[in-house]
Amino acid sequence: MTTSPEAVTAAILVIGDEILTGRTKDKNIGHIAETAGAAGIDIREVRVVPDEEPEIVAAVNALRARYTYVFSTGGIGPTHDDITADAMARAFGVTIDHDPRAVAILAAHYGEGQLTEGRLRMARIPAGADLVANPVSAAPGFRIGNVIVMAGVPTIMQRMLDNALQTLTGGAKTLTRTVSPGPGIGESMLAAALGAIAQANPAVSIGSYPSFGPAGFQTQLVIRGKEEAAVAAAEAEVAAMVERVKASMNKA
Amino acid sequence: MTTSPEAVTAAILVIGDEILTGRTKDKNIGHIAETAGAAGIDIREVRVVPDEEPEIVAAVNALRARYTYVFSTGGIGPTHDDITADAMARAFGVTIDHDPRAVAILAAHYGEGQLTEGRLRMARIPAGADLVANPVSAAPGFRIGNVIVMAGVPTIMQRMLDNALQTLTGGAKTLTRTVSPGPGIGESMLAAALGAIAQANPAVSIGSYPSFGPAGFQTQLVIRGKEEAAVAAAEAEVAAMVERVKASMNKA
Repeated sequence: MTTSPEAVTAAILVIGDEILTGRTKDKNIGHIAETAGAAGIDIREVRVVPDEEPEIVAAVNALRARYTYVFSTGGIGPTHDDITADAMARAFGVTIDHDPRAVAILAAHYGEGQLTEGRLRMARIPAGADLVANPVSAAPGFRIGNVIVMAGVPTIMQRMLDNALQTLTGGAKTLTRTVSPGPGIGESMLAAALGAIAQANPAVSIGSYPSFGPAGFQTQLVIRGKEEAAVAAAEAEVAAMVERVKASMNKA
Repeated sequence: MTTSPEAVTAAILVIGDEILTGRTKDKNIGHIAETAGAAGIDIREVRVVPDEEPEIVAAVNALRARYTYVFSTGGIGPTHDDITADAMARAFGVTIDHDPRAVAILAAHYGEGQLTEGRLRMARIPAGADLVANPVSAAPGFRIGNVIVMAGVPTIMQRMLDNALQTLTGGAKTLTRTVSPGPGIGESMLAAALGAIAQANPAVSIGSYPSFGPAGFQTQLVIRGKEEAAVAAAEAEVAAMVERVKASMNKA
């Protein structure tokens, strides 16, 4: 993987009726976001679309024009509802056919005489695409232009992502620090002071992420940025502010 | 909740940097999809966008023009990074201010003299919106036009969703049947026959959802449709096909 001094962005495109009906709970978005982020590729948008070619084509064309990369998941299996490869060919305006490299991989995997029509369908790859290796179950993903097309099954997607990332260019990594005020300190107690710190530190972004459990509300304050000194300075300001708020509560 | 004979569609708009960085794993998409689906509201698209007003405005305007409803989650707390209410006001071209109904709810919840600047921020509601009650932590969501704006914390979002659904119109519910061929039957063995059944049964959609575990691949075949007779007929065809494939495997 090479690195670039520019910001490198990406979108995730999840393809599948099963996510939109809630039947399958997505496990790929969070994994791709973390893994790409650690490689200096910032996820800026996610879309989930149904298994319908016009929807896939419209989404991938909108996203690939806007971000450095697009990671898609789902719809590259052997059944009639797996239409991602055809939709990608349509989106890029290229032909699609059985790819000899993919056919060879599947033939070796399944053994002689076992390359059924369904299995062969997984060798359909848009013209001009590079294959992305699948060490779990052989049938490859692919990269066409700036779009990386991966399986939906998480164990397979994760290996494809690792392989694809080797070939991509990452930017400066986002540095993250977390300040945890602890139970009993809700974010509304910190909001005004935190907003002032955020305004005074434009080189970082500061988020407040509440959770609600048996002990009531608590929040985590997350400082993100590309420059170590700026992130460290903002973290110190946030930590000092939290201590001041706690001290004033003990006094009250 | 009223019902309509027309198809009722919706999108989910998840707002939050924490989802895009992978720091927080979304738990709302699957819940909304299942709950809305059970109420006859079909989720057709999901988008996740960062805590940036132009991104939120563009996404909500694209989605509200296209679907019957939009369910948004996240960004309605008390801190500086909670900008959803302001973004919704911008998207709809209306003003936003402290809403007297919301102020009264928060004043009653926190008690006299406890309505800090941060807490009061949660009473900012776009003009013309209806409130959505929050029985967990008081600060309300709201509905403006066809957009239902909810918290990001799952326990709170779930109660807001239940309350909002009471006021919406649901369509015909999608009926779902699942045929599970069991371990050892991968989807490529079923693909050709399944595709033929799908083509012969245009009133239903048929999906094949593989999973990969210690026992290798298996798949679940899911038949969905709005008409009971069509769904039952397709289910019977799929089940019979699976038995034929199993019988031919035992012979081989």
